[in-house]
Amino acid sequence: MNIQDNAGTIPQVGIIMGSDSDFDIMKEAVKVLEEFGVPSEISVISAHRTPRDLEAYASGARARGLKVIIAGAGGAAHLPGVTAALTELPVVGVPIFNQKLSGQDALYAIVQMPAGIPVATVGIDNARNAALLAVQILAISDTELMQALTAFRLKLADASRQKTGKIRQRLHENN
Amino acid sequence: MNIQDNAGTIPQVGIIMGSDSDFDIMKEAVKVLEEFGVPSEISVISAHRTPRDLEAYASGARARGLKVIIAGAGGAAHLPGVTAALTELPVVGVPIFNQKLSGQDALYAIVQMPAGIPVATVGIDNARNAALLAVQILAISDTELMQALTAFRLKLADASRQKTGKIRQRLHENN
Amino acid sequence: MNIQDNAGTIPQVGIIMGSDSDFDIMKEAVKVLEEFGVPSEISVISAHRTPRDLEAYASGARARGLKVIIAGAGGAAHLPGVTAALTELPVVGVPIFNQKLSGQDALYAIVQMPAGIPVATVGIDNARNAALLAVQILAISDTELMQALTAFRLKLADASRQKTGKIRQRLHENN
Amino acid sequence: MNIQDNAGTIPQVGIIMGSDSDFDIMKEAVKVLEEFGVPSEISVISAHRTPRDLEAYASGARARGLKVIIAGAGGAAHLPGVTAALTELPVVGVPIFNQKLSGQDALYAIVQMPAGIPVATVGIDNARNAALLAVQILAISDTELMQALTAFRLKLADASRQKTGKIRQRLHENN
Amino acid sequence: MNIQDNAGTIPQVGIIMGSDSDFDIMKEAVKVLEEFGVPSEISVISAHRTPRDLEAYASGARARGLKVIIAGAGGAAHLPGVTAALTELPVVGVPIFNQKLSGQDALYAIVQMPAGIPVATVGIDNARNAALLAVQILAISDTELMQALTAFRLKLADASRQKTGKIRQRLHENN
Amino acid sequence: MNIQDNAGTIPQVGIIMGSDSDFDIMKEAVKVLEEFGVPSEISVISAHRTPRDLEAYASGARARGLKVIIAGAGGAAHLPGVTAALTELPVVGVPIFNQKLSGQDALYAIVQMPAGIPVATVGIDNARNAALLAVQILAISDTELMQALTAFRLKLADASRQKTGKIRQRLHENN
Amino acid sequence: MNIQDNAGTIPQVGIIMGSDSDFDIMKEAVKVLEEFGVPSEISVISAHRTPRDLEAYASGARARGLKVIIAGAGGAAHLPGVTAALTELPVVGVPIFNQKLSGQDALYAIVQMPAGIPVATVGIDNARNAALLAVQILAISDTELMQALTAFRLKLADASRQKTGKIRQRLHENN
Amino acid sequence: MNIQDNAGTIPQVGIIMGSDSDFDIMKEAVKVLEEFGVPSEISVISAHRTPRDLEAYASGARARGLKVIIAGAGGAAHLPGVTAALTELPVVGVPIFNQKLSGQDALYAIVQMPAGIPVATVGIDNARNAALLAVQILAISDTELMQALTAFRLKLADASRQKTGKIRQRLHENN
Repeated sequence: MNIQDNAGTIPQVGIIMGSDSDFDIMKEAVKVLEEFGVPSEISVISAHRTPRDLEAYASGARARGLKVIIAGAGGAAHLPGVTAALTELPVVGVPIFNQKLSGQDALYAIVQMPAGIPVATVGIDNARNAALLAVQILAISDTELMQALTAFRLKLADASRQKTGKIRQRLHENN
Repeated sequence: MNIQDNAGTIPQVGIIMGSDSDFDIMKEAVKVLEEFGVPSEISVISAHRTPRDLEAYASGARARGLKVIIAGAGGAAHLPGVTAALTELPVVGVPIFNQKLSGQDALYAIVQMPAGIPVATVGIDNARNAALLAVQILAISDTELMQALTAFRLKLADASRQKTGKIRQRLHENN
Repeated sequence: MNIQDNAGTIPQVGIIMGSDSDFDIMKEAVKVLEEFGVPSEISVISAHRTPRDLEAYASGARARGLKVIIAGAGGAAHLPGVTAALTELPVVGVPIFNQKLSGQDALYAIVQMPAGIPVATVGIDNARNAALLAVQILAISDTELMQALTAFRLKLADASRQKTGKIRQRLHENN
Repeated sequence: MNIQDNAGTIPQVGIIMGSDSDFDIMKEAVKVLEEFGVPSEISVISAHRTPRDLEAYASGARARGLKVIIAGAGGAAHLPGVTAALTELPVVGVPIFNQKLSGQDALYAIVQMPAGIPVATVGIDNARNAALLAVQILAISDTELMQALTAFRLKLADASRQKTGKIRQRLHENN
Repeated sequence: MNIQDNAGTIPQVGIIMGSDSDFDIMKEAVKVLEEFGVPSEISVISAHRTPRDLEAYASGARARGLKVIIAGAGGAAHLPGVTAALTELPVVGVPIFNQKLSGQDALYAIVQMPAGIPVATVGIDNARNAALLAVQILAISDTELMQALTAFRLKLADASRQKTGKIRQRLHENN
Repeated sequence: MNIQDNAGTIPQVGIIMGSDSDFDIMKEAVKVLEEFGVPSEISVISAHRTPRDLEAYASGARARGLKVIIAGAGGAAHLPGVTAALTELPVVGVPIFNQKLSGQDALYAIVQMPAGIPVATVGIDNARNAALLAVQILAISDTELMQALTAFRLKLADASRQKTGKIRQRLHENN
Repeated sequence: MNIQDNAGTIPQVGIIMGSDSDFDIMKEAVKVLEEFGVPSEISVISAHRTPRDLEAYASGARARGLKVIIAGAGGAAHLPGVTAALTELPVVGVPIFNQKLSGQDALYAIVQMPAGIPVATVGIDNARNAALLAVQILAISDTELMQALTAFRLKLADASRQKTGKIRQRLHENN
Repeated sequence: MNIQDNAGTIPQVGIIMGSDSDFDIMKEAVKVLEEFGVPSEISVISAHRTPRDLEAYASGARARGLKVIIAGAGGAAHLPGVTAALTELPVVGVPIFNQKLSGQDALYAIVQMPAGIPVATVGIDNARNAALLAVQILAISDTELMQALTAFRLKLADASRQKTGKIRQRLHENN
């Protein structure tokens, strides 16, 4: 199933990135939202190359039914902050890693917003967490989604628990 | 009016901090929520000194009616992340500045959460933005709050616009 | 003389800053331009609080006769980069110091622009150099201004040369 | 011989890690403890995915006979600090390297604990040293272990001494 | 066509680098200038190995018809600043990445110039942006070049716009 | 009571620092040890100014009855590591803050020890935690001390719990 | 006695700084050299404001009898490296602290010289050590100076040794 | 020819490193000294694994005829500083790169020595420059060596000059 442009489904989460080179990171957000059945749409919009497209996108986001926007960018990562300036919707920012300053530039450029216009920043390259945060935000007023989150957490814990056996097994084999 | 322990008002946002030395920063969050009429409660709970209190607080947060938790901490700032691990509610993290590593330690310890458990991180000492983010999250399903946000943004813009006149005046006076 | 809103003088350099708290730094740029007789105008425009004002300002800058824009901002300093995205004029960025991350956040958020949209970044808080860079840019096609620059450099060298005598004098007095 | 779950041997050192991806680093600690004949056990326990398991583990550690806990974690590395908050036993923290912030995030999140709850932090990825520190701690009240440490140091010195001959030989061969 | 030593063409932009190991980065500047039809010349001149050549080059640059100098260097990157000290022409500095300090050393050594002698610094390894900045500077007094810049920006925007379709296609194929 | 040179009491913890300018930080360690009744001695010994004194001190530490050494140093902080190289006793390192590199230099110089010779590093300026870590280490084989630790933790938790009332009171007074 | 311009004394060490604002740091070097009876001269020469003066100074240094040059500079600290490029004499670099990037910029700009042209870098603001290094260099071929160094080291050790008594006294007084 | 243990040649420069894993970097120093005909010896001596060997080596260095010591180390790089504490000879420190903190740890641990005991620090992994600095130091009182240095500098400049032709050729071929 394709959730992005599915006729009849109104996306609740908009995922944007400054460049298609960020796609390999940002597609993880799409996957998470799909797992939770949250309709989303994904787009490339650059705060620098297409600033007026960004204005149109962000200004109209609420009217189009979006509830959360996830924005990923690297370097002088302005996309999340400029988006946040143009909409009252919560904006989740994903700093994208680059070898040059180890992602520190993107992290600082996203998280250090001035008082008045927050960006909900997650870890470097952590698009999964951006999507989970969007789900948590939506789940506040969606009991079903909240139950799915609870189930997800249990599964996460179970998966973690099975690792002890696995590494002890690997130790055995090394000896 | 006292919003914290007002009989009859169920807080929607829980504000916690690791130490009362963080109070001067974190009280800004209280003020913003008051301005928007969002009931909140404020507490000191330490991930390190009272870990079991934190578990009780975070595990029970949803049942008590909280919708968002704001957690501020400095240094090895574990409070936001450990809280996030114990509730499905969105947790907003505020890194608290300290001269020793310029707030970098708190920022990293809050934002770099592992996949699965996000913390919505805002800028260093930026408790105002943490509260605004909480308001934005609540406003998704609260039309009145969304209108208040829109009005807030207009006021913010107006205040900014009046600064040009002010600094030009200061230039005049300097000449 | 007031260069900002002087009837009949068309500003060649636009100086903008995200907040009036940046004024004490940015007014140094005004002074330098005044010394060189380059008409300028100074304004507070925020990429986050008044994004649409910024679009109007930057998009119309060239038509209004501006030739260079100097933009100063701190923290997640998006102002210079977003301005650069909205005009073909050269934009000079001034990272503003803040104790929290020692100005590193502003520097990274200004200098690390993506390929396609450069910002000419100067040192942290170095608004004087931003103005001098604007003068150098204008002087390429303005012989008189170039001569003024040459004279300025000679004066700078002379001032520096007189320091040796001064510190040797201070050494004498200490002994 | 398998020291982890050997019937009849009570582990003295508990080695925990937040994720099995840390195993390749942390298994070095197991090896060192084996060399010194110190019984240990290794487990995956996450401060974020299984916080209640961690509480059970750390709270019960002393009663089960553990004397030192070694905890390795990367990113927002809360595991060592949260463990330390839940037991009076000394906790040794191992920051795990990650390309994104070069291990700086894990180091800061482990070492910068608030007054009251220390974590004995060793170098990034240096699980060997974590185990040696555990041995040194145990050796204070175990004469035999102390003698083993003395012997280990002599061997370390001898191995180092033989390197001069080795590199001089390599120089010869290069010429 | 070869723009570097083309008889009859006077270069407007001088591109210099401290070492030929910087060539793979700096040749991007040549390409951009070629695209805009701006004649340039490229040279290796070291502030440390051939300081007197640098003085001759920079001191004579204006007389030879150069209008902008682009200087790339890594490590203790003195080339752009020393060049700027020897000419009134605008100097654009390109910090060159090196794994050792992630390009931070070159960035700081270029951007943090003292008041009086600015260097227009672009992002790490971003020689494309250095050339575009040179074009923007020249375009202030060159209508044709300004039109070429406007066209370039439109093309940049169009290219960016086509990426949304591309990544949505990739998502489809993954599903 | 004076614990340092008290006739008849053999110190269990040696506290050393590179310079008497570190005394204001390091005396906190003395206080903590006094509170727990652990006899200690405090000395200034420099790895750089008195390297042979350090060798004598560290080599003889175990024979004199010391069980743990706490070493504080700033800048190129070699004292803890060199001490650790000269004794099998556990060495706890305290990085001392200095404005110049924000304590980062001391932290790195202490924590990044090579495999073979660990230093148990605590947070910058956190001499209290160094002493608590020493107490935890000694308490492994000292039931009474372990009980004192348990009591200390309860007191710490109680003190933390009373802060919520305190800050709510301050909020009231502000309103 | 005035060592700088004393008729008949040929300075052996040249001390230069980029700005007279560095004088309070750099005068410490003068004092140390005076203590050792090494004739020196102090000057303000800027790599950026008076680059040709620097060339004259450095190129002629050896002929004038200088044996070591000490150069202090802050920010984009090019002075030591450019000096080193213009003379075969050993150049000792002193990075000068500035709040903006905590002296990191000056340190990197001085120490990260390319292969071929070294600068002997000392700690941030550590002009005393720069002078001591110059003395050590001169003492290799000056037996008397070497004896003075040996005496200086003994004095340094003695001064350090007296600190233990001093801090124990302060502890007493606190109790 | 083997300069290290050549009977009849007294080494003037001692090259030491903390671990044979530093050999690939440090052997560059040997090569440079060989080129200049300066006899040297190379050894592995660890400040942590063989601290007493280091004391013997450094304390006896001057008596054995050494004039300069070059010490390379990574991580908590104490070797250069501890060596400097044990001899009046000038010690040149080479910080060795490691991916974990990008060489920043070694650089800080070497350069930030306390007042009294300097280490002449060169760039990360720059053993060539360490050797050249040793040559420059020795050349102060060795006319022949000084002439060799002058010749070396000319060769360095010539090699650099030939690079311009080379890169212009590569540009041609690309077109």
